[in-house]
Formats: sequence, structure tokens, C-alpha cells
Amino acid sequence: MNTIDKNLHAKFDGETAEIDAGTTQPFAKSRKVYIEGSRPDIRVPFREISLSDTPSMFGAGKDEKNPPVMVYDTSGPYTDPTISIDIRNGLPAMRAKWIEERNDTEQLDGPSSEFGQQRKTDPALTAMRFNLTRKPRRAKAGMNVSQMHYARKGIITPEMEYIAIRENQRRENMSELLQTQHKGHDFGASIPKVITPEFVRSEVALGRAIIPLNINHPEIEPMIIGRNFLVKINANIGNSALGSSITEEVEKMVWGTRWGGDTVMDLSTGKNIHETREWIIRNSPVPIGTVPIYQALEKVNGKAEELTWEIFRDTLIEQAEQGVDYFTIHAGVRLAYIPMTAKRMTGIVSRGGSIMAKWCLAHHKESFLYEHFEDICEIMKAYDVSFSLGDGLRPGSIYDANDEAQFAELKTLGELTQIAWKHDVQCMIEGPGHVPMHLIKENMELQLEHCGEAPFYTLGPLTTDIAPGYDHITSGIGAAMIGWYGCAMLCYVTPKEHLGLPDKEDVRVGIITYKIAAHAADLAKGHPGAQIRDNALSKARFEFRWEDQFNLGLDPEKAKEFHDETLPQEGAKQAHFCSMCGPHFCSMKISQDVRDYAAEQGVSEQEALQKGMQEKAIEFVKKGSEVYQKV
Amino acid sequence: MNTIDKNLHAKFDGETAEIDAGTTQPFAKSRKVYIEGSRPDIRVPFREISLSDTPSMFGAGKDEKNPPVMVYDTSGPYTDPTISIDIRNGLPAMRAKWIEERNDTEQLDGPSSEFGQQRKTDPALTAMRFNLTRKPRRAKAGMNVSQMHYARKGIITPEMEYIAIRENQRRENMSELLQTQHKGHDFGASIPKVITPEFVRSEVALGRAIIPLNINHPEIEPMIIGRNFLVKINANIGNSALGSSITEEVEKMVWGTRWGGDTVMDLSTGKNIHETREWIIRNSPVPIGTVPIYQALEKVNGKAEELTWEIFRDTLIEQAEQGVDYFTIHAGVRLAYIPMTAKRMTGIVSRGGSIMAKWCLAHHKESFLYEHFEDICEIMKAYDVSFSLGDGLRPGSIYDANDEAQFAELKTLGELTQIAWKHDVQCMIEGPGHVPMHLIKENMELQLEHCGEAPFYTLGPLTTDIAPGYDHITSGIGAAMIGWYGCAMLCYVTPKEHLGLPDKEDVRVGIITYKIAAHAADLAKGHPGAQIRDNALSKARFEFRWEDQFNLGLDPEKAKEFHDETLPQEGAKQAHFCSMCGPHFCSMKISQDVRDYAAEQGVSEQEALQKGMQEKAIEFVKKGSEVYQKV
Repeated sequence: MNTIDKNLHAKFDGETAEIDAGTTQPFAKSRKVYIEGSRPDIRVPFREISLSDTPSMFGAGKDEKNPPVMVYDTSGPYTDPTISIDIRNGLPAMRAKWIEERNDTEQLDGPSSEFGQQRKTDPALTAMRFNLTRKPRRAKAGMNVSQMHYARKGIITPEMEYIAIRENQRRENMSELLQTQHKGHDFGASIPKVITPEFVRSEVALGRAIIPLNINHPEIEPMIIGRNFLVKINANIGNSALGSSITEEVEKMVWGTRWGGDTVMDLSTGKNIHETREWIIRNSPVPIGTVPIYQALEKVNGKAEELTWEIFRDTLIEQAEQGVDYFTIHAGVRLAYIPMTAKRMTGIVSRGGSIMAKWCLAHHKESFLYEHFEDICEIMKAYDVSFSLGDGLRPGSIYDANDEAQFAELKTLGELTQIAWKHDVQCMIEGPGHVPMHLIKENMELQLEHCGEAPFYTLGPLTTDIAPGYDHITSGIGAAMIGWYGCAMLCYVTPKEHLGLPDKEDVRVGIITYKIAAHAADLAKGHPGAQIRDNALSKARFEFRWEDQFNLGLDPEKAKEFHDETLPQEGAKQAHFCSMCGPHFCSMKISQDVRDYAAEQGVSEQEALQKGMQEKAIEFVKKGSEVYQKV
Repeated sequence: MNTIDKNLHAKFDGETAEIDAGTTQPFAKSRKVYIEGSRPDIRVPFREISLSDTPSMFGAGKDEKNPPVMVYDTSGPYTDPTISIDIRNGLPAMRAKWIEERNDTEQLDGPSSEFGQQRKTDPALTAMRFNLTRKPRRAKAGMNVSQMHYARKGIITPEMEYIAIRENQRRENMSELLQTQHKGHDFGASIPKVITPEFVRSEVALGRAIIPLNINHPEIEPMIIGRNFLVKINANIGNSALGSSITEEVEKMVWGTRWGGDTVMDLSTGKNIHETREWIIRNSPVPIGTVPIYQALEKVNGKAEELTWEIFRDTLIEQAEQGVDYFTIHAGVRLAYIPMTAKRMTGIVSRGGSIMAKWCLAHHKESFLYEHFEDICEIMKAYDVSFSLGDGLRPGSIYDANDEAQFAELKTLGELTQIAWKHDVQCMIEGPGHVPMHLIKENMELQLEHCGEAPFYTLGPLTTDIAPGYDHITSGIGAAMIGWYGCAMLCYVTPKEHLGLPDKEDVRVGIITYKIAAHAADLAKGHPGAQIRDNALSKARFEFRWEDQFNLGLDPEKAKEFHDETLPQEGAKQAHFCSMCGPHFCSMKISQDVRDYAAEQGVSEQEALQKGMQEKAIEFVKKGSEVYQKV
């Protein structure tokens, strides 16, 4: 039994294999609700946050109800107390029926990859192997099972309907006040007022959005990535040679979706990554992405020059049959572009990019990923794996931003997108990296131009290099901006970037930072309903509904903890002032006095002033307008 | 002895009154250096970060020296080990001679304000009073002692020369590689290649920049705020009715300047704010701003309607004679604008704004600040206090952004700017607040238009309201953007915003976040030399000079701490890989292999490839290119 094995079993001694309670417990005043679609097995999850009443002093003389607010929920069954979780069983295969019904896939006898077979039969791995009884599926001969393929045939799949309900967030139930929002500036996006299943279909058909979901990942809750939908975020997890166990990775994944990760990339590079991945996928309600070249490299003991197309191909099939939803493939790193990086400050910083560069130089040959791109497409469409075309030549420093190598590769990624689309294979494009603010827009514009509006998926970008330890922030700035300009998904960066492996707290901070960036982008684009949560929270803030203010926030626990550091008493949660200013200085309070006074007089302040009713002003002084509620 | 008093004395029992060693100890590998100007008493401080050599494997066959990097230093004498600090004595009055030389001020017998006199003679305050033997100064009758007045007369003051040296950061000593940077996009700013004393003078004369320094704050190290200079940040400190002591506030101020606060606002609202302020100013190397109306309100026991011009006037004089460098004055909150806030989600959120609104409504009269604006100018120019025209009607939520009330007030602030300038009084303009990304630019554009290019000084803005506990980030995004668009100073927001009072750690995080925002803005504007630190850090990163990477960062301690969490061994600081990828996966390493190979062959990779020298590729494989240094 190796260390990972031991860890695994140490955790699994109990009746059921439970992960930390803190990782799965529902948020305060939140409950899981489902909206049903056109058939009973389309049940779209949301988190419903219930709110307290507006006190009469802020309402029209009496307490007013505040309807609950629904928010997009990435946390899956983990936050549904009616579902019992046992990570040894994985999540329910919610989507299995939809896949079977289409009657275009077949069940295999077992893994068809050489590596998959070998791992399945290796007795040394028994203890750590996820016990999946279900066999892998693959498209029947000659069939294409990608959502893009269906979309182009005019078929609206249950997945598409599910997504439409999910994106709309049932905002029609909210008050007019909460639905009010600024007109956005969307840089030419085409965001409709209501997301219909047909709109989802047409965006996927056009290649402007992707639905990453492998037929071998039926546990997934479908989601979409595209410029005309809510901006999404990705959280990276993964062990390296130096750290972490299988259960830690599963827990990190669950933890990541709890805080709002829309997809998770498993970037493991250590031993047993096949087994780790199986555990992650079986327990993941969100799409899982990988970089298959990392594992291929493990198979040749880290010697890039010994990589072959055959090894890579077997790895793709191995992972596709496990259920990986999207593959990062660095097929744009062409031989001719590598010398363009010689004058860089920081060379090639993408791991995949540098592996391929090393291979190309060693063999003095064109990249086998580029040469075999159509072969790769054949695999992708047999399982509906989406491309995430890797930016192997992305800049690793402000100095290297927007250089010749980067944009040469981007152009090639555009050519490859067209090939993927020829095969009806879903495709998104990865982007930088490290870019000063004023050069970010060019990235988005060139990506749209070269890649035919395929979704853009960027890492940050970091807007300065001078703050190691705070690169979630240097990059959160860039992420918000590129999200506004049209980037569809933002890959998070944690505070540990460049320095070490993120722990749970780093993952949480990274995700919240990126939820902020994505949401700020939605607001700026004028995404319908985006402002509801801001409005609800601002209203709660103005009315001193402290608990509501915490609960509507992205991190209710942190907000409450911060508040309680200064005012720990329970009574302070009802206080009509806060610790920043004390009871005499609350500007919110004074604003309210202004409104109260006007309301008492039965006129708006506007009228009161316009009529020049100075006597009313005198009354106001006489009354002293001291309506503080003492705690 | 009250609580504050006790705290103070508990701290001052020792031989000298020292603040926490962690607050003052110099950063690793950093030393304080001074550049002398045209006269020996112009000595401009910098922090010089020394770097290790580039190892031969990255250099041209031998170790290469990396010259030290100079950075702007706001930390004052505290980080100069040759200066002994005793906060009971305050800092040396470095600028006293320059003020005296001008021969346009006179020493008073003592405070001329009623309140100042009262506090000075109150025996109950003896124990907590700062023991200042120096008398306050004031302009001689009919004189104007503002830097703007000198600038308009064509006089280059020592302060202006000091600032020119400080802004240039002696970048001419750096290598061409490090000086290389992207052409910026500055939205019509006029940033010269070299900041000359004459340029400083002309910007101040035009009103496009201010030098906030009161003649009664000779301890200050002069700095400038303007669109054509480095973007600055402000840190707020201050106790409230609910917390913190005098020494805590002094320590917070020193702590704030340590991490990079360019100015500090003392927003205290509790008791003894006169005495607290004196301690802060006497020990502050950076400009101190206040909001005098807070103290005026204390004098009328929190009853806004009892405020009078006489009380406010006495407060201005009281504070001006202590040495406050800029006053936030909410003179733009006019009676007619108040009703415009009635339909807001969050009313009036500026404390100063709400106090004035309450006063205006209570009396149904125009604001006494607006009516007495010229009287205020007379006081400002007698001490060289700069205006920070407060945005009392700034939005307190995304919902309220860019509304009628906000922009009506901004226009009035523009009118008041013209009046201030008529008196040669320096003036900057405060801005919001809470603004979604796409509405930020309008704020900057209207401010430039209405306020004749007077410097803009904004709080954030927060780009979404849904993340209490993370508002340093929601606002850091907005701050970076508005800094890029032309905002001259960014007021920081800490993680505790909306929730509680910041502690030291919050202050540090808030400041670093805002240093990031300001620096990202400098890079995007293409400020000369801005990229040097990024380049130096990126080079260190590429060359695995871990310690240099930490030390060049904004928070070396945090970076080191994060690195050490995963790889604590001392040897890991020399490792040519890091914990993220492990030794076999380092893309930086692979990039270096590419370069090394090319260097060995005596040709660039470009040539190697262009000549199609396949045999060289074969050699590369044979050598195995395994040059890792095992730890």
C-alpha cells in the first residue's frame, strides 16, 4: 500500500465515505430548489436564498416581505441534504437516459485504450481503484455524438433545455426594482433578453458556445460556455510529484464547485493520475478538463522527445472513456513558431507548449498534434469531448505580452477551429496569461477575428508581474476586463500562483476572486438579470439586514466572520449601524431619516423642497429625528 | 486616565517609544538610499533592492551581475536603520528650512483656533498630549503660501525639485532590457519622458497636479498627485466610537506607509481626535488628509442641524495649524441635489454628504460650505492646505451609479475648483464609489471636462456589490481601470469594507491591492520606467532566482511565506524548479534548454531552424539535455 492508498483508506473507514462536513454543508438560509423542464428528468438546480422582511421603518409603514433570490448553483448534489453522498459510489448518472435514448452510442466491453486496460487489470491498483461497474460508451461506427452535431441537425437536446433554464435563473419572479439594471456595453455580443433552448442550440451550432460533456460523464449537470451566456470560471486542481492524495483532490474539486467553479481542470502530473481522475470524474457535477499531454509525458518517463502520436492517441482514448469533458491540446505550437520565443524574457511558460516545443526541436519536425489534428477530431466526436485549444506560446511576463509568437499561434488555433467545426467538434480557445491592461482588448479582438467567435478561455490575464502572493488580484483585474470584452470563461489564479500549490483556502480565495471578475463582466455586458443579486444585497445593506447582506454575498461565511470580529454580539446583527462609523455617524441612517421625514409628511422630499415648505424643515429639527434603535 | 490614555502609556514605558519591530524593519536585501538634489538638504529617499547574479547556465557562459533596482519609497525614516525612531519626538522637520527661507510665514504664539487653545490648556489632556514645542505657522497677512501660488509665479520650490527626483526613480541606471516597455495608451494625458522640476511646477500651476503639504507639517517627504505622474494610493485609518487607541492609529499609519500608502487619511470620529491627529501628523512622512466635518459634528454632539459655519471654520483653523495637508470638504452637496437621492437604492452613503444633507434639510438652506467657499479658500492658502472636494452624493451601490445626483454634484465641484484656483489654492476632486466597469470611463471623462483636469481621487470604484469580505478586490478592479483612464489617486478599500474596522492585516492587504491597481494603471498608461520592476521580477523568475523574485515583489514576506509552505527547505530557494510542477515538468526549464542548446551551437535557434539543420536536432536528443540541478 503506497501513501495515496493509505490516505484513501484512512478516509474510507466509516460507514460511508464522507468528505469534510464544511465542504458540503448548505449555506445559511439557502436551500436547493429544482426547476423542472419539459420532462420530469430535466430538473435544474438552483440555490434559493431566503431573506428577512424589510422593517417597517424602511417600508411603507409596515414590514415588507423580500422574496427569496435564486442564484446559479454549481455545487451539485453535495449541498442537497436529501441526497446522501458516498464518494465510493459517485454521483447519480442523471444524464444516462438522455444519452441512451439517442441510440447513437454503444457500450464497450471495457476500456478500449491499451493503458486503460492495463490499469484495470493491474492487481496492485485494486485498493485505490474506483469501483465503476458501468462500461464505457462510444459512438456507434460512423456516428457523431457531439452536441454541436445535434445542434447543426436542428435537434434541441435535453442538455440544451437544461442549460436554458439554468442560465435564466428564473429572474421573472423578482420585483421590478431588483430587475432594474444599467444598460450594458457588450462589444458586439448578441445576448437575448431570455435564453431559450433554441437559442442555446443555435449558439452551439454556430460554434459560438460549447457544452462540454462527455457521454462517459453522465453525472454532470450541463452548462454552457459562450460569449452570449453568463461568464464562467474554471478552477484548477491536481497533485504534482510533490504533493496531495486522491481524496484531497476529490475534496478540492467539491470544494471548488461549492464556491462557484463552473468547470474544474485536473492538472495532475504525479503517479496514479488515471485512478485519481476516475475518482474526480465520478464525483463531479461539473465538466472536467485535462491536458492529456501531461499524462502522455508520464508514460515516457518525462522525456518529451520520446512522445509519439500512438502514445498520445491512446491517452486521449483512455481519458475520453473515463469521461473527461474537454481536452487542452497544444496543437498550435508549430515548429516554425518556436524560434520566435528565443528573444522573450520568459520563454515558453505553458507546460504543454514547452513539451511540444522540446519535441519539435528534438525531432526537427512539425508537431504531431498539428499533423494528426483530424485524427484527434475523430476521437473527440466519438465521445463528445470538446477541444480547449491550448495556447502553448502564451506570454509568461508583461514583457512578452502580445508578441509575434503568441499571435502566430492564435492564428493557427483559428485554422484548427475550422477543422474541428468541419467535424462538428466543439471547440474553445485558450488565451493568456500576462498582459498589461491596455493590451488586453487586442487579445479578445484577434481571437474573435481569427477563431470565428469560438469561445475564448483565458488564464487571467495578470496585469502586472510585481505582486507574487497576490496574483489572484493582478489577474482578477485582467479577467474582469477580458470577460467584459467577450471572454467566455476565466481560468482562476490563486494567491499561490508562481509560488506553490494552492491549499483549500487558496482555492476558495481564487474562486471568489474569479466569481467577482465574471460577475463584474456580466454586469458590464448588461447580461439580463445580472444586477438582481447586487440590487438585493444593496437593499439589504441599506436596510441594515446584516444576515441578508452576508447570505447574498459570494462568501457568506467570510462576511459574517469579518463582521463578528468587531461586533460579535448577536444583537449587532439587528443593529441599525455598524462598527465602521458607530451609531451617530451612520450615513445610511441619515439617508433614511430624510426618507422617513418625507414619508411622514405624505410627500416626497422632492415636493417638500420644491414647494419651499420651510416650516416642515423646522418641524424636522424639533422632532430631533432620533430614531436609532439602541442595541 | 481613560482607556486611550492608559494604552498610550503602557506603550511608552520604555526608554524610547518604539512601535512594533515588524512595522519598521527594513525589507530583506533592501536598503534606504538618498539622491541629492541641487542643494544638500534635498535628499530624496528610495529603496534599493539588491539582486543576486544570473547563474552561468542562463547567462553567456558565466555569472552575470544584476544591478540593484530602485523603487519609490513611501515608508519614510522608519526603514532607515541609521535614524532612531521615538514617536514621542516625532520625525525630523526636514522641510522647516525651506518654509522659513521663503519668508512669507510667521510663527504664531500658539493655536489661533478656539478649540486648539482649549485642548492645549486642558490639564486633563496633559498625559495624552504630544509634546510639540514648535509653534504653528501661518502666512503673513496678505500672503499666499500654496505651492500653486509659487508655481504660478514661476518659482520652482525645493519641494518641486524633490518630487521630480522622486518620480524619475533614477531609471537611467537600468539596463536597456529592463527599461524596455510597451507603448502605453494614456487617454490624452501628457506624460513626459523625464520629469523635470520645471514640469512639476507647470503641472501645479495649471492645476493638473497638487502637492499636498501644509506649512505646519514640515516632517513630510513631498509627493505629487496628478494624472501625468505615478498613480498614487491613499490608506484610510482612524478610530471610531467603537475602537482603537492613539498608538494603534500611529502604528497603522506607519504600517500603511511601509506597504506603500502615498497619503493617509485620518477618519477618526471618536473622542480625543485632536490629540490622536497630532500624534499621527508629527510621525507621518506622508500627507495627512482629514474630513473636518466629522470633528465639527463631534463638537455639536452629533447633531448635524446644530452645525454652524463658525464651528466649522474654527475646526479648519484648528486642523490647519496642526498640519493637515488636505481637507475633504463636501461643498458640492447643494440643497437642490438632495431630493435627487430619494429614489436611490442606498441614498446618501458619504458620511460628510449625509451630514450636510441633514443640515440643509433641517434648515431648508443652502449648504454653509458652499456659501462660505471663498472664506474657506482664504484659510487654505494661509497654510497651504489642499482641497479634496468631497463627493457627498457618490453612489453607494451599483444601482445608484452615475445618476443625476452624482453628476449634478460633480458639475458643482467643477465650479468650486475654478474658485479655488482663483485663490491659487490646490484642489483635487473625489469620485465614486460603486460603478460597474462599463460606466467607469464616463466618470473620468466628466471629471476631466467639468473640473478642468484637476486631479481625480476615487474610492475604488467597486465593480459589483455581491462580495462583502472581498471588496478590496471588487474595487481593485475598478481602481486599476480608472487609474488607467487618468485618475491620479486611488483610495484603498480593505477586505473589511462594509463589515467592520480594518486591522493591520486588512490594511496591508488593502494597500497591496491598491499598489497593484496603481501600478497596473502606470503600465497601461505607458508611464516611463513603469515596467522596470516587472521586467526585473520576470527575469528573476525565469532564472529561478527565488529570493530576488520575492524581494522585487510588493510583499516579499508574503511571497516567501507562500513559497515556504510547500518547499520550506533552504535549498529549494536555489532549486531550478518549483512546487507547482515538480522537477520534470518545468516549462521555464525547458525554455532554457532551448536557449542553451542554441547558445552551445553558437547560433540562435532562429538560425538553427531556418537553415534546417536537422543534424543538430539529433545531437540535442543524444545529449538528453538533462541539466537539472538536483536539490
